[in-house]
Amino acid sequence: MAHKVETNWKKGMAFESITDSGKVFLDAGEAVGGNDAGLRPKSLMLVALAGCTAMDVASLFAKMRAEPDDFAVNISAELTDKHPKIYKNVKIEYKFWGKDLKKDKLEKAVNLSLSRYCGVTAMFNSFSKVSSEIIYIEN
Amino acid sequence: MAHKVETNWKKGMAFESITDSGKVFLDAGEAVGGNDAGLRPKSLMLVALAGCTAMDVASLFAKMRAEPDDFAVNISAELTDKHPKIYKNVKIEYKFWGKDLKKDKLEKAVNLSLSRYCGVTAMFNSFSKVSSEIIYIEN
Repeated sequence: MAHKVETNWKKGMAFESITDSGKVFLDAGEAVGGNDAGLRPKSLMLVALAGCTAMDVASLFAKMRAEPDDFAVNISAELTDKHPKIYKNVKIEYKFWGKDLKKDKLEKAVNLSLSRYCGVTAMFNSFSKVSSEIIYIEN
Repeated sequence: MAHKVETNWKKGMAFESITDSGKVFLDAGEAVGGNDAGLRPKSLMLVALAGCTAMDVASLFAKMRAEPDDFAVNISAELTDKHPKIYKNVKIEYKFWGKDLKKDKLEKAVNLSLSRYCGVTAMFNSFSKVSSEIIYIEN
């Protein structure tokens, strides 16, 4: 399967990317000559990681009949200091809200995503140390 | 430097990611249980790659006084067949439009981005084979 993305210059440091599933407007911050009018490219790597594993987990907890009331995936990542700057330590935090959460199934869903299904996690594992944590908020 | 991204479930396979530079709405296609209402996570890896190197090049050709009339970066990438699916072959096409293009400077800008500045390219080099091509359209 091949994916294509077209990215067109909008002058300055601004670009518009056209993907099969929608458009993304990109810009740099003012400190590096942009107008801060769009998303930063590097952060989209983290959005890709969060979205990939989050969709796996949502798909799995639906199949396992272990749906929580709410769910979030938070990522924090450190960049190296020198160019080219890459993400070195990446932490994925899975948060589940609900009453009587099916923790064993939710944990299994997270582990299946991280170890088997999530291609973006697999790509990140090639250049960074990815760690994860599960937080349950029961009410 | 640390980057953070928060990604909240919007039911089904839909999520909203909040980054320092804006929000991104994500969804899966209908074939895998989504409603096709947002961007696919994996494609955002390619948007990140295109945006990162495109901003480097735009910044460099401005400094080099070699600005073209127009500029685009197109990416095509193949995914592996088996889970976890990762991008294996990635091709970056740089297109420059203009009259009397300063080709030596534009080529230098591309090479500096690919070899020295673009962190996303460096991350992709860890798991895929990245190739590039420069196309000049003179009018």
